[in-house]
Amino acid sequence: MRIDRARLEQSIHELGKIGETPRGGLTRVALTDEDKRGRDLMVRWMREAGLRVTVDQMGNIFGERPGAERLPPVMMGSHIDSVPTGGKYDGQLGVLCGLETIRALDDHKVRTRHPVTLAIFTNEEGARFQPAMIASGVMAGKIALEDAYNARDKDGLRLVDELERIGYLGAEPCVARPFRAYLELHIEQGPFLEEEGLTVGVVDGIVAIAWSRLTIHGVQDHAGPTPMRIRHDALVAAAEVVAGVRRIAREIGGDLVTTVGNLTVHPNIPNAIPGKVTLSIDMRDPRGETLDRARPLLDRAVREACEREGVRYELDHYWRVPYTPFAADVVAAVERAAKASGARYRHILSGAGHDAQYMAAIGPAGMIFVPSRDGRSHCEEEFTPMDDIEHGATTLLLTAVDLAGRA
Amino acid sequence: MRIDRARLEQSIHELGKIGETPRGGLTRVALTDEDKRGRDLMVRWMREAGLRVTVDQMGNIFGERPGAERLPPVMMGSHIDSVPTGGKYDGQLGVLCGLETIRALDDHKVRTRHPVTLAIFTNEEGARFQPAMIASGVMAGKIALEDAYNARDKDGLRLVDELERIGYLGAEPCVARPFRAYLELHIEQGPFLEEEGLTVGVVDGIVAIAWSRLTIHGVQDHAGPTPMRIRHDALVAAAEVVAGVRRIAREIGGDLVTTVGNLTVHPNIPNAIPGKVTLSIDMRDPRGETLDRARPLLDRAVREACEREGVRYELDHYWRVPYTPFAADVVAAVERAAKASGARYRHILSGAGHDAQYMAAIGPAGMIFVPSRDGRSHCEEEFTPMDDIEHGATTLLLTAVDLAGRA
Repeated sequence: MRIDRARLEQSIHELGKIGETPRGGLTRVALTDEDKRGRDLMVRWMREAGLRVTVDQMGNIFGERPGAERLPPVMMGSHIDSVPTGGKYDGQLGVLCGLETIRALDDHKVRTRHPVTLAIFTNEEGARFQPAMIASGVMAGKIALEDAYNARDKDGLRLVDELERIGYLGAEPCVARPFRAYLELHIEQGPFLEEEGLTVGVVDGIVAIAWSRLTIHGVQDHAGPTPMRIRHDALVAAAEVVAGVRRIAREIGGDLVTTVGNLTVHPNIPNAIPGKVTLSIDMRDPRGETLDRARPLLDRAVREACEREGVRYELDHYWRVPYTPFAADVVAAVERAAKASGARYRHILSGAGHDAQYMAAIGPAGMIFVPSRDGRSHCEEEFTPMDDIEHGATTLLLTAVDLAGRA
Repeated sequence: MRIDRARLEQSIHELGKIGETPRGGLTRVALTDEDKRGRDLMVRWMREAGLRVTVDQMGNIFGERPGAERLPPVMMGSHIDSVPTGGKYDGQLGVLCGLETIRALDDHKVRTRHPVTLAIFTNEEGARFQPAMIASGVMAGKIALEDAYNARDKDGLRLVDELERIGYLGAEPCVARPFRAYLELHIEQGPFLEEEGLTVGVVDGIVAIAWSRLTIHGVQDHAGPTPMRIRHDALVAAAEVVAGVRRIAREIGGDLVTTVGNLTVHPNIPNAIPGKVTLSIDMRDPRGETLDRARPLLDRAVREACEREGVRYELDHYWRVPYTPFAADVVAAVERAAKASGARYRHILSGAGHDAQYMAAIGPAGMIFVPSRDGRSHCEEEFTPMDDIEHGATTLLLTAVDLAGRA
């Protein structure tokens, strides 16, 4: 059984036009007008494929292809929101390979025992509303619906109001629902598959992730007449923290990655000593113990940097997810499918969080990776060759049929 | 001859209400609605004081009190725009002490030989449109009118359009005009007067200033699956530059001050490795030679930081003003007036740029400083006691009468 490569490529192209950047990337941030247009196109395609489309309270979209029996569905899903100036593959590719799986099942007139459902999750990226994966988090019962609704973007707009504004505030309860398996195809976003000349990654689990937020309160003053000896510069302290966060990865080594991705200066003008800086710290490792070791190093780096500059701070370790192993039977099914598809594959871990992480908390989940050129993602240069996509999509199709069972 | 302290205090209070922040500071950024309201109030007060008000092509406002003879005026001026969350004294105080001087001349029925003119300059702070002091720069012929008109704020709005929008795009040519003297009273914005228990600073000149802008191009990528070994993080390089800029002040010592006040990260989300950072470098010293020595240290700090992280950069040393000495006869007049006013004074240099800097290029200029509590400015805590203001305002009044001559 095969997917229709040309059709899939055309869909990637078409959806990728919505929010396309001049340099060929994608800006389709959650619950913006672009997101709405992307959703509208997906809903149209899902209906054209005969799916029964529903929208839940978090704006998650589901399209069900009935099975021969009244059984929980095999769900395939991902997201279509992007980071600003991101790429056309992250998220979108998983959704479109899921759609292509449904279309291929129709082409081949395959009837499955379990229903097969396509899912599109709201605000996976967390670029606009924090935390990331907020909608699968609500579904998994890890985030309260009310908290999610009250999440605000940087302009103070609430998630629930933006959901309503774009017409995707649905009525279906956003709660855990039974599923035979949740399958998510995604780009690797790292360099390993490409470096090793492979086309598919059989994902064993998702690394542990810890997010912290640091606010540094310096003394805002004029950059000219204020002698160095009386300065308390929030940015000087923050710079030392950025260096310290990098040093933690070097000291602990192994697979630990540490990043300061967000840093905002106030008042942020050339001739004022920064009075306030906020910054994010992202630390990830396959083993949670490593993050346990990294945290006191972070605490110390922040304390020392701020003491040296004589500035106050608040450090909030506000989000932590442990290592998420995927269900053994799903991983085994993905591996069988990868082999059957002719893909060159290996087992791999995901360094990025995905909706599959929360779905794994409420049912059997697994993921399929395809390579990212130069390991790059969350950028306009994000790219995966169609040959690899074809192998990945075929692996998804075969896994879905395996787990849904032929009627 | 005395100023009316209660009237001056009331004016400071009233103008300070326009753009007042909840914490008692001021946000009255150039050419915003708040700036317009501040201008409108000033124009009303100037007209009530019988001044002939004109507005030039850069939105600079002039109010002339005629002299007994057809001679060039003694100009008193400053600005009423502020930095975001700045204070109620920077700029505003000089304008209001100038107005109080005019009112006091009327109270005492003093007729002067030279006219006495009050000037309010547009966009002194440079918080919204760069460079700072853009309007006195145009008047001094140092900045082309067209370049100033095309300066854009961070939202892409042009200065000329915003001037027109708030109704202050005047018809008078913005060109050098003869003046007997330009006098600017201003807060010190540094700690020296307060530390030494003085009330007035007789300003000998303005330190040399060098502004540079650095853009660092890293490789934007996902913060999770991207191993440390393949990262090119623009913010890690930028953090090293911030530390390096601080180090330059320590290495050279003396009166050199170095500041990174503006730093902007792209895409600035927690889970993306920063692909691009722009930042400002501000270096100041009384002696231009010190800045000559600082520049290669800056060049090297940037080069080494960027090489270490493997990132490209552009470093633009785009603005440099040499040490500006004030006119000896004006400085002498200020000193005589300070003495006559009973102020405890000293000679001092200005660490901040002021419109007086450009005015000094086209005529005799001088400045009067009053203390800043804790040396702080460009912040909501900015404060100068009324006792000091009274001495400063009296010094301004006596200087103006001295230079304008009694008819």
